[in-house]
Amino acid sequence: MSSGLNMSRRIRRTPYTDRVEAVGVSGFSVVNHMLLPKAFKQTIEEDYWHLREHVQIWDVSCQRQVEIRGHDAARLVQWMTPRDIRKAEIGQCFYIPMIDEQGGMINDPVLLKLAADRFWLSIADSDVLLWAQGLALGANMDVYISEPDVFPLAIQGPKAEDLMAKVFGESVRDVGFFRFDWFAFQATRQLIARSGYSKQGGFEIYLQGNSLGHALWDTIWEAGREYNIKPGCPNVIERLEGGLLSYGNDFTRENNPLECDLGSYCELDSGIDFIGRRALQTVKDQGVKRLIRGVLFAGDACPPCGQPWPVMVQGMRVGQITSAGYSPRFKQNVGLSMMNLGYWDAGQLVTVLSPDGQERPGRVTLLPFDSQTGSV
Amino acid sequence: MSSGLNMSRRIRRTPYTDRVEAVGVSGFSVVNHMLLPKAFKQTIEEDYWHLREHVQIWDVSCQRQVEIRGHDAARLVQWMTPRDIRKAEIGQCFYIPMIDEQGGMINDPVLLKLAADRFWLSIADSDVLLWAQGLALGANMDVYISEPDVFPLAIQGPKAEDLMAKVFGESVRDVGFFRFDWFAFQATRQLIARSGYSKQGGFEIYLQGNSLGHALWDTIWEAGREYNIKPGCPNVIERLEGGLLSYGNDFTRENNPLECDLGSYCELDSGIDFIGRRALQTVKDQGVKRLIRGVLFAGDACPPCGQPWPVMVQGMRVGQITSAGYSPRFKQNVGLSMMNLGYWDAGQLVTVLSPDGQERPGRVTLLPFDSQTGSV
Repeated sequence: MSSGLNMSRRIRRTPYTDRVEAVGVSGFSVVNHMLLPKAFKQTIEEDYWHLREHVQIWDVSCQRQVEIRGHDAARLVQWMTPRDIRKAEIGQCFYIPMIDEQGGMINDPVLLKLAADRFWLSIADSDVLLWAQGLALGANMDVYISEPDVFPLAIQGPKAEDLMAKVFGESVRDVGFFRFDWFAFQATRQLIARSGYSKQGGFEIYLQGNSLGHALWDTIWEAGREYNIKPGCPNVIERLEGGLLSYGNDFTRENNPLECDLGSYCELDSGIDFIGRRALQTVKDQGVKRLIRGVLFAGDACPPCGQPWPVMVQGMRVGQITSAGYSPRFKQNVGLSMMNLGYWDAGQLVTVLSPDGQERPGRVTLLPFDSQTGSV
Repeated sequence: MSSGLNMSRRIRRTPYTDRVEAVGVSGFSVVNHMLLPKAFKQTIEEDYWHLREHVQIWDVSCQRQVEIRGHDAARLVQWMTPRDIRKAEIGQCFYIPMIDEQGGMINDPVLLKLAADRFWLSIADSDVLLWAQGLALGANMDVYISEPDVFPLAIQGPKAEDLMAKVFGESVRDVGFFRFDWFAFQATRQLIARSGYSKQGGFEIYLQGNSLGHALWDTIWEAGREYNIKPGCPNVIERLEGGLLSYGNDFTRENNPLECDLGSYCELDSGIDFIGRRALQTVKDQGVKRLIRGVLFAGDACPPCGQPWPVMVQGMRVGQITSAGYSPRFKQNVGLSMMNLGYWDAGQLVTVLSPDGQERPGRVTLLPFDSQTGSV
């Protein structure tokens, strides 16, 4: 199911693309009209073990920033999310579901509060820039909205902190989880957060100034040699084991945040007003019809999940696998599935129909997988 | 500059993807979060000649439709474009630049007027759905906006009309250029337009109902055997020769429509009101600072244009090539470039710096190339 990607300017390169090519990138995805490296020389399983044991450098520039600033900035951001952003502090990263009038997920960015009237939304794969600008223009809000010259670079893995301290100084160790602070790099100040799309710990450097891309990559790379640094990317096995969802894969605009088990970010009783409030209240009152769950299932490693795979109980389709990978620790496949009402209890036995024609026995688990044990 | 594309559900398959895989697709692009086939077994030049002489079937499902209907539908569409849509008739395809408050290009869809209060926007690569919904929600407009279950399939080339008449009946020949009508297919009515992203003539079938995708492809394919049908895709050489621009490649949000030579679609004197009107008037009053032009340049075929290539005059950068290909008819390369003020006259001699390190002599031409003659 792999094929060639035909390059064009429309699929934007990043300040690090030259460098990921130099270290042997072999596959990309496209996110927010931008290249996301997705494969290097090592296998996914080799990459998985390396990420758990050492440190990796990831070009996640495709996590584009949407900057919202001005008098009505906080009002606009609050309008776009059911989470109460009054609780967000300056210096905090704040995960916020964004929904439409029907409660459907538009994106699930990380909100960075830079000042009382200045925010970045670090987005998944949809043009939140156009959504925010449309809302602001339509409602005649006093805000300035732009895509700033910012290109995140992630440093992930258990040795990330030592490497970051070597490059940016010991004080980087004081940055708390999902917090950020500012650090010097070549006569600039750069925002560094303790965050990233893995469960192995690490940091994201929100590099401002694309002309510094090569210098930043090279500095990290050289300093990282003693920590066995390798190029990497979000690892599907690792993120599935950790229960990290992916917008566009595991949930889409067809899903509401309660189905995605994001109820703790939907503060319907807080008095805030937001787009989709009424629809979300209805979903809550009536209860969800499906719910995101893990599925552990047997057999050899499956092919990549390019389209949903049916999850069956007694010949009836009750779910669909939307991401999957073979976990070397569980010694079976891990996958995510929206499971229909009545079939989402942990322990529910299912059959997964993978595109290689196999019928694979499996069972439903709570997330994250790492909290579970047992086999099929 | 080619590499692998890692598949995932987020990069959506189309109703025709199974079929393009069966006939040997070897490369894709990603447009609107969806696969666009971009390479088959033949070379770009073989594909070019075939397109000019026979007929091709293109999966252009990524031309997503944004449906806008309801009481305020026409008002919202007009707000989004500087073209006077009062002139659009039911049954007409209407090319409309869409701009932001600063005059920057957001998209350049084809507007299909289905009824006085119902439109489809057939979009290039940006989430116009979110832009339109944001505007409508912000301004509290009485419209319903959605992405319908529609997947365009293009039939392009000089034999397209005969093939289409064989499948849909002789009356398809009566459909005028950039007009559409409704035709029967397997107990459904389908919208067919005389349009497409080539200059060789042809049609686009706006298939409603993704479950009909295989049947439609197979029907066209079987009927097309006598016309030497092949799978194809927008051909960079053919579209450049014909002067067809590509959003994200040859112009972006950094460009206004006057720079893109789309002045005839900017009706500042018509009395209509639209987003970006003031900014566009300022650009018009002051004159543009750059202008889209063709560049004919020497040397062997270049690599794909994955990032802009400098266009130089006397050591100064005065433009950038954003798409390029080797034209077997002109026996040189054709490219598109925004040329700076003072350097856009036809005949201007330039040097193109291609990424293979060559300095290629060239000259500026008006568009389309087909109206030009001569060599470097």
